[in-house]
Amino acid sequence: MNPLSSPLLTDLYQLTMLEGYFDAGMTETAVFELFVRKLPPKRNFLVAAGLEQVLRFIEGLRFEEAELDWLERSGIFRPGFTARLADLRFTGDIHAMAEGTVFFPNEPVLRVTAPMPEAQLLETRVLNLVHFETLVASKAARAVIAAPGKRLVDFGLRRAHGAEAGLLAARAAYLAGFDGTATVLAGPEFGIPVFGTMAHSFVEAHDDESDAFADFARTFPDNAVLLIDTYDTVAGARNAIAVAQRLARHGIKIRGVRLDSGDLAALAREVRTELDVGGMADATIFASGNLDEYRLRDLVASGAPIDGFGVGTSLVTSSDAPYLDAVYKLQEYAGRPRRKRSTGKATWPGRKQVYRFGDAEGTFARDVVTLEDDLRDGEPLLVPVMEDGRRIVTSPDLGAIRARTAAEIARLPVGLRELDEVDPPYPVEIAPPLAALADAVDRANVAVGGWEAE
Amino acid sequence: MNPLSSPLLTDLYQLTMLEGYFDAGMTETAVFELFVRKLPPKRNFLVAAGLEQVLRFIEGLRFEEAELDWLERSGIFRPGFTARLADLRFTGDIHAMAEGTVFFPNEPVLRVTAPMPEAQLLETRVLNLVHFETLVASKAARAVIAAPGKRLVDFGLRRAHGAEAGLLAARAAYLAGFDGTATVLAGPEFGIPVFGTMAHSFVEAHDDESDAFADFARTFPDNAVLLIDTYDTVAGARNAIAVAQRLARHGIKIRGVRLDSGDLAALAREVRTELDVGGMADATIFASGNLDEYRLRDLVASGAPIDGFGVGTSLVTSSDAPYLDAVYKLQEYAGRPRRKRSTGKATWPGRKQVYRFGDAEGTFARDVVTLEDDLRDGEPLLVPVMEDGRRIVTSPDLGAIRARTAAEIARLPVGLRELDEVDPPYPVEIAPPLAALADAVDRANVAVGGWEAE
Repeated sequence: MNPLSSPLLTDLYQLTMLEGYFDAGMTETAVFELFVRKLPPKRNFLVAAGLEQVLRFIEGLRFEEAELDWLERSGIFRPGFTARLADLRFTGDIHAMAEGTVFFPNEPVLRVTAPMPEAQLLETRVLNLVHFETLVASKAARAVIAAPGKRLVDFGLRRAHGAEAGLLAARAAYLAGFDGTATVLAGPEFGIPVFGTMAHSFVEAHDDESDAFADFARTFPDNAVLLIDTYDTVAGARNAIAVAQRLARHGIKIRGVRLDSGDLAALAREVRTELDVGGMADATIFASGNLDEYRLRDLVASGAPIDGFGVGTSLVTSSDAPYLDAVYKLQEYAGRPRRKRSTGKATWPGRKQVYRFGDAEGTFARDVVTLEDDLRDGEPLLVPVMEDGRRIVTSPDLGAIRARTAAEIARLPVGLRELDEVDPPYPVEIAPPLAALADAVDRANVAVGGWEAE
Repeated sequence: MNPLSSPLLTDLYQLTMLEGYFDAGMTETAVFELFVRKLPPKRNFLVAAGLEQVLRFIEGLRFEEAELDWLERSGIFRPGFTARLADLRFTGDIHAMAEGTVFFPNEPVLRVTAPMPEAQLLETRVLNLVHFETLVASKAARAVIAAPGKRLVDFGLRRAHGAEAGLLAARAAYLAGFDGTATVLAGPEFGIPVFGTMAHSFVEAHDDESDAFADFARTFPDNAVLLIDTYDTVAGARNAIAVAQRLARHGIKIRGVRLDSGDLAALAREVRTELDVGGMADATIFASGNLDEYRLRDLVASGAPIDGFGVGTSLVTSSDAPYLDAVYKLQEYAGRPRRKRSTGKATWPGRKQVYRFGDAEGTFARDVVTLEDDLRDGEPLLVPVMEDGRRIVTSPDLGAIRARTAAEIARLPVGLRELDEVDPPYPVEIAPPLAALADAVDRANVAVGGWEAE
């Protein structure tokens, strides 16, 4: 069972509900939508990501022999259920916002229209993928905004939450404007540029810091970035300069240095001066060490001569907001709109579309969420991507998605590009036909449910 | 390339350093230790987890053809480097704390002793695994402490950071005392009990809540837990009772109800009364919805008649502290102790052992971190688990690890079992021989490095 593609990577209740749906003959068309209920603290927008992984998962969705065997042996289900699962494939439609689209609360980013059991079964893994990539893309976009023109590299794998998180974080960060990642596997997997040179252990393993620098530069004669803070950053810079001068006659050129601790702004200034005076004016300074978008903003504002940043843990865990209030909710079944009314968790029923309206300069001005058949002039954000279980559009390559994200962020009102919450937030209007439908569903449910609302 | 086992799931600098080590002939024995520098806010202890996944990763460590091809084509490395990688296997030793061991800052939980390139290469993935499972086990232990005797189930997969995070979070939570998980794949993968019944969509798909309850109960005649908050919780409870009374004559028995929104303490009381009066005195009440250990503590303190809790997002993302300051550091190379002195990130050099001392009642009293050859009376926490690349102990099964964790937590001083930080923290002493070695290494480095400390 491959954890990345197994249909058992789901909540048990999806399977128990499937058996219930089969038993009750409830296999008519269901419409589920994935959306975020509210923004986490300090966020003004989100960046949609993860659709490509979702489509691959859906295309490959099937129960293998070993999975069916386990389900049978589990004793949870009646005989006969697993036989139906064996034949289950996704045969429905998917509408989605393109990856890289900026979006806001209550806007569906993905809609599934399919026979109820198929649509239900998707919930857990589809949320798992879209939630995480969107979380990291949205976090990464903030670093890109905070440090315009600086090289940004994802350094987070070691503290990402498992293997897939590390890999998908590299993708989400690149998509949102990072220049690359330290995660090697993101190279073959996604074609993302990979970066990296040396760690403290390389320096410490040598008896002398200068020997470490020289050894490394000889192995990478035109691409070495030396880590200079193992013992003392400024002394490290001087050692790097001495090594560079010594090796220059062999055609070896040090490309830059990295700082990973201490007062980065002050050290970068000192190191810059040392490098300039020492004949290394075109060597770059790269900084890392517990960085996030707030520290990037402050370092950039201070005018510190830092050319690029490695951002790790804060990026891949979205540490100040490690989850989104993302949900996947039933909006229609068998042609009738549906609505949950649980306290604080009520949903908007029906098949919906999101229209975006810009101002004369092309800046995003407002969105309208309405029913699919309430056609509007604005740009419809949900587009069909899968029909009858088959993709109907070619996936854009990651570079194109990255360009789209940049264009979207450029069209945000300036205030929304702040790292702190703006008030008022971006306007998202619930259109009158949608509000009216919600009321109608409430009245119908009260009547049918046979009880009175309190 | 399988992301869960690929050696390319690493930071690029591990590979560039490997080439540097090969070029410089630096393949002597290195000792790296994995430890946590400081506790996150509100934590008083951590629970070691992830060793089993680490050992499997190490046993399977090898570069496949496709991986070597990609590295060659990348243009990053010199010809000849990949040939050496093709032969690379892990041939070293691993010492580790048993999973489920309670530990504290600056205590190595895992030590790698191997030829430098092998030991270096392990860093990223070993940290990735131990960091995440320890993070979640430590978070889960807090929920177990907060709600003694209650059934606790991991509900977090949908907002876990990717597939592996969801799966390993289920393992880490179970290990720390949870009763099971909703993640089906954790059943076949780890033998963890899986739980789950119905979601709101099942109720909403029916035109009438009572029909949904009856359908579900007919499919699971002795195991249905009905979700009663889709429209109105107390009315939902009444519907559940009516259905239970109606189906009792068919031998169907409702096992319980679940609340997922609103004021859980107040609603649980109302629902309990309804159930007791309605002939369902032995039906259980299960609660979920944005729960964490603080809410569990408050609900338990309020005396709310809730029998079990589903804990999701806060658990699997460790939302109030989504990462640990976990690192993997070189402590010795070629027989000489090593030390990093970067500002705020200095390390303790040498091969170390952690001894734990208890009081007369068996309660943990203090730990001593010292050099491996400074033998003490206390219980040594690091034990050999792999020699020359082969496991030398059979892995305990997950149930045994779970029992160990419970026993460890029971031996913690009472104050450490608080959900808030206690002051003073648990005493961890750096033994004099270790402190002396750190001083000696500093003096030697200053001499050899050719610069003066500031």
